[in-house]
Order: sequence, then structure tokens, then C-alpha cells
Amino acid sequence: VPTYRLTIEYEGTRFSGWQIQPRGRTVQGVLLDALREVTGEPRLDLQGAGRTDAGVHALGQVASLRCQRTLRPADVAHRLDALLPADLAVRSITPAPHGFHARHDALERSYRYQLARRRSAFGKRWTWWVGEPLDLAAMEQAAAALVGRHDFAAFGKRGGGKDSTVVVLSTAALVATGDIVLVRFVASHFLWNQVRRMVGALVAVGRGDADSRDVPRWLDGTASPPPLGAPAAGLFLEAVRYGQEPFMLPPPIPIGVPVADPGGTR
Amino acid sequence: VPTYRLTIEYEGTRFSGWQIQPRGRTVQGVLLDALREVTGEPRLDLQGAGRTDAGVHALGQVASLRCQRTLRPADVAHRLDALLPADLAVRSITPAPHGFHARHDALERSYRYQLARRRSAFGKRWTWWVGEPLDLAAMEQAAAALVGRHDFAAFGKRGGGKDSTVVVLSTAALVATGDIVLVRFVASHFLWNQVRRMVGALVAVGRGDADSRDVPRWLDGTASPPPLGAPAAGLFLEAVRYGQEPFMLPPPIPIGVPVADPGGTR
Repeated sequence: VPTYRLTIEYEGTRFSGWQIQPRGRTVQGVLLDALREVTGEPRLDLQGAGRTDAGVHALGQVASLRCQRTLRPADVAHRLDALLPADLAVRSITPAPHGFHARHDALERSYRYQLARRRSAFGKRWTWWVGEPLDLAAMEQAAAALVGRHDFAAFGKRGGGKDSTVVVLSTAALVATGDIVLVRFVASHFLWNQVRRMVGALVAVGRGDADSRDVPRWLDGTASPPPLGAPAAGLFLEAVRYGQEPFMLPPPIPIGVPVADPGGTR
Repeated sequence: VPTYRLTIEYEGTRFSGWQIQPRGRTVQGVLLDALREVTGEPRLDLQGAGRTDAGVHALGQVASLRCQRTLRPADVAHRLDALLPADLAVRSITPAPHGFHARHDALERSYRYQLARRRSAFGKRWTWWVGEPLDLAAMEQAAAALVGRHDFAAFGKRGGGKDSTVVVLSTAALVATGDIVLVRFVASHFLWNQVRRMVGALVAVGRGDADSRDVPRWLDGTASPPPLGAPAAGLFLEAVRYGQEPFMLPPPIPIGVPVADPGGTR
């Protein structure tokens, strides 16, 4: 079976998530329609590495595509550029080994959450502006306490057919650059809603509504983490790793630029 | 009369431009409404340095505000953050000398146009993706030929109450970074539509539909420049210079990030 690997970028604001649904505009659905038109094949199998929720973006979603006939990737890519809507782009199509499955074969997924440090006219769709100063050092301590093999049941439901709520979180780190604080999480898989719940808890620590020393008690079940998750708009699936490939972790998407301040008040 | 200088950022997509109109959502109109509510003063005078058109963005628009009573800038800024819509932000408010007028006192205005070098799911609102390769060296030659004191009548109508179509263009330069080619123009003032017409002409040169050696003939009136202007979405008023202040020219707003390409075709 001819199999291909697609790297996909989407602005999630107007999508009801990745996974195809009877109703609702989904990334998988829109992309399958375009691929059927381009290939002329009514039966295609398209599987994404991450089932992102409504409003969540992707910089480097990966999907596997199985077809009946061999494709010419450059032609398909060119025709997709003309067919796909403005908020969805296929960045690469390459032949993949027989049997490649983007979700089952993924070793690690990297998500980022973009917190805005100021109100920006360009930030609404891609960031969460909390509206008050955050104690980044306390948030870093709390993030570090999340790293490792833990039962994250308090942070999300099971998802993706896994029976266990145990997740090995290999990275939970803050990167502050310019007007953005990027919070990055890497793991083999995540529970449903886990990243947004973890970000919500870190922001509670940053605001002083919770303490980084509470994290172990959230994980061992003796206390409940803050219940509010972060809004979808700040969340991006940024990369998926397979085999021995290096993990490409891209820099933040800025929300504007520094402006010369003539000795002002902000 | 208490006078203030405001630095303003907006995402122009949903605005009918800067200048207040009887109908239509304008930056000046929305900002005046918010300022009236914050100050309690029904009669305020708010003048912007650049009358940007519908769909044009601003990173550093400057406005002068005249009021009846003295304001506390930090309080006004804080209350505006809560009142203004997501696509409009006031970045600074500072006391200005008596008689300061943002439009009349401006010495130079800098506009940028963002051309996308690839199709991006994040680029539609802020860039123009031409959809074919551009000869950047030819565009640079054409841009250089535009610099200087010329009659730009072929590129735009008079605007801003000026009688002459002569403009001294001090900068016309390309900056290529990552997925963006930024085209920057600096002049004391511009004709209406001039920047978008100049970008349209440069893109015609980049596509090979025109030649950089045609530029002098466009300027002396012996030939007509390409008639199509560039779309509003790529255009930003980026900075305004007054007096001896340095000119702050900010970097491009990216439209996504590099993605590791597993030996692909794009």
C-alpha cells in the first residue's frame, strides 16, 4: 500500500479540532476532501499523530496517508496549495515506509502553550493574556515538579485508547522571549485536556493562587489541582518525533513587536 | 490644554481604516468612544499620524489627544486595556508638549509590507502570498530606483491636504527573513494608495512581468506602472518619527515556524 507522511500546519480557531465528525468543520475532514479531489481516490486512510481539540493550533502535526495508487508528492502538494482554505497548509509530503502509522508510531509529542506578557492587538488568536503579572520563577518550580512518571488522573481523562492515566512527562519548561512566555510539554502521549489543565495550574501558581509545593499533592491525590484549564487559543501541537529523528522545537510566534516608548508609563 | 501622545497597535482586518466615519467601525471611532468613557469628557480631540485604509494594520500608529482636564496616564492605560476590543491596543500614553499634533508634527512615517515566501496557515491576515517565486534581486534594483525626490503621481492620488504629488522617498528596501520578505518605505508623507501601488509594481518586477529599468519611465510619465496594488492585509504603519527621536523599525511578524522536513519535496 503506498504510504505517505504529511506535515501539516493549521490555525485552529475555526476548526472543530482534528478528528472528522458527522457535523462540524474538522482538519481531518477538510484535508480528506481535498486529498480525494487531488488523487481521484474516494477511499483514503488519513491518520493524525495528535487529535487536537477545537481551537487548538498545529505547527507540525504529522499524518499518515494510505492510498491505492502511487502519488507524485510534488504535484499533490502543489494542488493542495490551491485547494486548501487559508487556515490549513500541508508543509511536506514524503513517501513513508510500508505500514507507517502517524499515531501508533509516534514516540513523542511536543505541545507548547503561549502566554502573553502584555495585551496585544495581534495576540487574541494565539495567546492567553492573563492580565496580571505572573511569578515565572514559581511557575518554573511547579513545572519542574510535574516532570517524570506520574499518575496524571487529576489533570485529565484517559484518551487515545490508553487504559492508564500514567504519563511519563519528559519536559515541562518555560521559555520567556519578548512578549511571550512559552510553556512546553513533551511526552509519549497526553491525557485528554491534560496540557490545558497543567497550564491552568501553572498560571494559578504564577498568580499566587496556588503554591509550587502543592504539585506533589496534586499528583498523589491528596489535593486537587486548580480546576480551570487554559483556553484553547494558546495551545499548539508543535512537533512529533519518530524513530531516531531529531526533535525540532520551534521558537515562539510573536504577537507584535517592540515599540519605542518615549519615556512612557507602560 | 492637556495634551497626550498615544502609541497604538491594531489588527486592521475588521476596521474600516483609521478615520472616523458616520458608518463603519474605525480605529479613531472605537478609541474615542473608549476614551470618552474613561475620561468622562464628551469632547476630546484625537488625531492620528497616519490615516490608514481599511484592512491596514498598525504596529506603532501615533495619536495626539487633547482634553479639558489632566489625566493620569497609567490609570487611563489600565482602563483602556479592559475596555478596548481584542484587535486594538494602546501601548503607551505620555504627556506631550502643549500644541503637539500627531499628524502635523510627524517628520517621517515608516510603512512595511509583508510578502510571504510560502503558503502558511497563519499568514492570511498579515501577508500577501503571491504564489510563485519572486526575483528578489530585481525587486531590490527597482526599489532602489524609487528612492529620492520624485513626482509619484502615477502611483497614487494626493492625500492629507497636500497639493503636490512630489514625495521624497528616503527608504525603499527589502528585508528577507525566514518566510517573510519585508518591503519598507520611509517618507515624510505618502500619497493615497502609494505604498500598495509601489509594492504591486515591485511584485510585477519580481514575477518578471516588468523590468526594474522601467522604473524611471514610470516616474517621468513616459510609461505607466502596473495598475494593480497589493492587498491591504500585508501593509503596516510601523513607526512615526518626531523631532530628534530615533526611528524604531521593528522586525517582521513571522507567519509560523520552520518545521523539520524529513527529506521532503517542498
